Amino acid sequence: MIYVFPLIHALDVDRLEYIQRAAIEVNHSGTITKVEHLKEDENIDGDDVVHAHPNEFLVPGFVDTHSHAPQFSNIGFGFNLELLDWLSQVTFPTESNYQDAQVAQIDFAKVVEATLSVGTTTCSYYSSLHLDATKILAATCHSKGQRALVGKVNMDSHCPDYYKDESPEVSMAQTKEYVDYVRNNLKSAIVHPIITPRFAICCSPELLEQMGEYLKDENLHIQTHLCENKGEIDFTMSLYPNDESYTHIYANRGILSDRTILAHCCHLTNSEMDLIKQYDCGISHCPTSNFNLRSGITDVNQLLTDGITKVGLGSDCSGGYEAGILQSLRDASTASKALSIFHNKPTYLSLEKLFYLATLGGARALDLEKQIGNFIVGKQFDALVIDPLTIANKSLIDSSKQSYISPLDRLKRNFERWLFAGTSANLQAVFVDGKNINIK
Amino acid sequence: MIYVFPLIHALDVDRLEYIQRAAIEVNHSGTITKVEHLKEDENIDGDDVVHAHPNEFLVPGFVDTHSHAPQFSNIGFGFNLELLDWLSQVTFPTESNYQDAQVAQIDFAKVVEATLSVGTTTCSYYSSLHLDATKILAATCHSKGQRALVGKVNMDSHCPDYYKDESPEVSMAQTKEYVDYVRNNLKSAIVHPIITPRFAICCSPELLEQMGEYLKDENLHIQTHLCENKGEIDFTMSLYPNDESYTHIYANRGILSDRTILAHCCHLTNSEMDLIKQYDCGISHCPTSNFNLRSGITDVNQLLTDGITKVGLGSDCSGGYEAGILQSLRDASTASKALSIFHNKPTYLSLEKLFYLATLGGARALDLEKQIGNFIVGKQFDALVIDPLTIANKSLIDSSKQSYISPLDRLKRNFERWLFAGTSANLQAVFVDGKNINIK
Ligand SMILES: [Zn+2]
Ligand SMILES: [Zn+2]
Repeated sequence: MIYVFPLIHALDVDRLEYIQRAAIEVNHSGTITKVEHLKEDENIDGDDVVHAHPNEFLVPGFVDTHSHAPQFSNIGFGFNLELLDWLSQVTFPTESNYQDAQVAQIDFAKVVEATLSVGTTTCSYYSSLHLDATKILAATCHSKGQRALVGKVNMDSHCPDYYKDESPEVSMAQTKEYVDYVRNNLKSAIVHPIITPRFAICCSPELLEQMGEYLKDENLHIQTHLCENKGEIDFTMSLYPNDESYTHIYANRGILSDRTILAHCCHLTNSEMDLIKQYDCGISHCPTSNFNLRSGITDVNQLLTDGITKVGLGSDCSGGYEAGILQSLRDASTASKALSIFHNKPTYLSLEKLFYLATLGGARALDLEKQIGNFIVGKQFDALVIDPLTIANKSLIDSSKQSYISPLDRLKRNFERWLFAGTSANLQAVFVDGKNINIK
Repeated sequence: MIYVFPLIHALDVDRLEYIQRAAIEVNHSGTITKVEHLKEDENIDGDDVVHAHPNEFLVPGFVDTHSHAPQFSNIGFGFNLELLDWLSQVTFPTESNYQDAQVAQIDFAKVVEATLSVGTTTCSYYSSLHLDATKILAATCHSKGQRALVGKVNMDSHCPDYYKDESPEVSMAQTKEYVDYVRNNLKSAIVHPIITPRFAICCSPELLEQMGEYLKDENLHIQTHLCENKGEIDFTMSLYPNDESYTHIYANRGILSDRTILAHCCHLTNSEMDLIKQYDCGISHCPTSNFNLRSGITDVNQLLTDGITKVGLGSDCSGGYEAGILQSLRDASTASKALSIFHNKPTYLSLEKLFYLATLGGARALDLEKQIGNFIVGKQFDALVIDPLTIANKSLIDSSKQSYISPLDRLKRNFERWLFAGTSANLQAVFVDGKNINIK
């Protein structure tokens, strides 16, 4: 197929490329084989050529670096609580429902439909701690065509009896069984397993150590939470008094690698940032959730400036209230502007950086940069077709008086307006791995 | 008509009432004549009885206390700038287009449709400075059935030659002509004029004085901006060096009354707060805009605690990016939580306060509390029918496993989830002044 569209994508942290008229060639495996810049009057025709409708443009699909599938039925609920209370009062009771495979089957189908329908082409999911539910979530992503990392949550400590792995051994055995299932039964090109210790509080030292051992031999992704909330950090350090810092708890047990995604990171010390840089971990910035649960405000601009650029956005549903990444992008802007206001410094995140975080930065954070994140030859075609001025979004209106601006400036203007005021109504099509996904 | 619905409304700053099954009787003038609490099994039937569908509930319509109709075509654009640059580079050029009455006719119809379609039943609009455009905006609100205060912007100083009132005299003459038009020609029950000096920078002392004189004899609403941004405050005080504060500039010229709405108020001093209390002015809190333009973070919780309770929410489009009030409510939560995080105090706005701001607080800020803001006998029926679980909003999903909770708890849960994760897709009907407005 050849897609003839205006195109916008991130080439690096601070670098967007706008192509007024691009022809993207995608082969049968969904791989981008050519990207041409066409002249305004250059014609391309053929059965396999798709042309943009007026105003439409193409962007890479959104990468959600952190979300919890079994929390979606709580979205919007419980934001009067802070993290640890919210977990015990709102989250754990709901997650425990996914012991029932039928509930997982029905609910996770809705979750994947919801995230696809707002343009999330890649998602790194925490499932519940249940083996069956986790298999179901992986299979659902695969069958619905969403690129995903899916992990069984590991938690054997400081969690309620009704929602707890029996022992470190059982937790690891189920994790290995799950990894085998994805690799040998599901055999998906787009869905992969990810090791998912909930966070240090909920994992015994034994569990973290066994996990570190397992990771030595396996080239696996791993995700966890880090330095989300001050109360959480204090409690964590009381459980691991001999480790230098929260980040060291993970580092000392073999959990950190360039395939590790650390969510939140609101309160990192300098030595923790050094450790993250040293191990080349990815960071998932979850601003909506960080505000809702009053966890803290991550200074992403500082991270990027300090050379930590494997940073993406996470919806963190249901700590976040919005299934898609557009709200995370806007709240990442808000978070950086709140810091800017408080510190009276112009350190807010630019449009370029915000869009980087939502796409290429997310791909880097998930160590998937070779496959996705922008439209570079050799990557897979994960893309969104956007009509910023569709009448289905009544708020994003253009004036009937159009002063002349160049087509390129109009593209930039429409792109910016969509980022801040677009809704799922502006989403005309979603492609994952070259396939047009039905999102209606 | 009698509406049999679950109902939620604010009775005061911190007090929501949930009625599991209410019967609201509305007469031909759109006035609420009776509100009954029905028992679960109590039947009401008749041609004039409307029953809720499953999950639906009724809330008062949203009150937007601050918006700029001629800026809607810029929504989402220009957030790299701060206030004064944003005005001169983005806003004034666009507003000046409304010199053309035909542009106003087409665009303002879209603006009113957009705000109605997201549940804004009452809006306090700034038009442009043009007399004809302002008449058109008022007439459009009237014909489309939106309750509104609509004002011609007054600005004769420190603004570009292409967008400026000719003189204080011309500015006042046009304002009076506009007020006469609304009162004597439009004669709307729901649309009223509001005097609208842009802000002190753009108004000469002469203009403000003449306005104050005019207001002495007329029982008119008045709206302006106040203490939005530090650069703005500094520039303002350099223009009015003999006034004690920005707020005193208005007070000393007769601009402040209990019908005055002051937008933003991010940086009030204690003496300014006292003045606002003394004159019983309303405040429009515009958190989305305040973040976008890095203006500041208004401590609304402090205002409410200090007894300034005539406070509502303003979308401030296009300083804000979202036509509706739900995003303002969420950003009001975010703003209060940002302050809570920074000051390490649990001073965030509760659900009760947030919803108060969006409805009854807005009505109070606009001095319209006798007419609207909640479902009290004698007020007009401005209402929204919400289905929090419509499949049209794919993100707000319920689990297929339903643990038992009481119907009242379920109503509270659905209400909270809608406030944080609802979209216009959850809006089933909009009533203004008793009339069902077509929003599709
Ligand atoms: Zn999380
Ligand atoms: Zn304004």
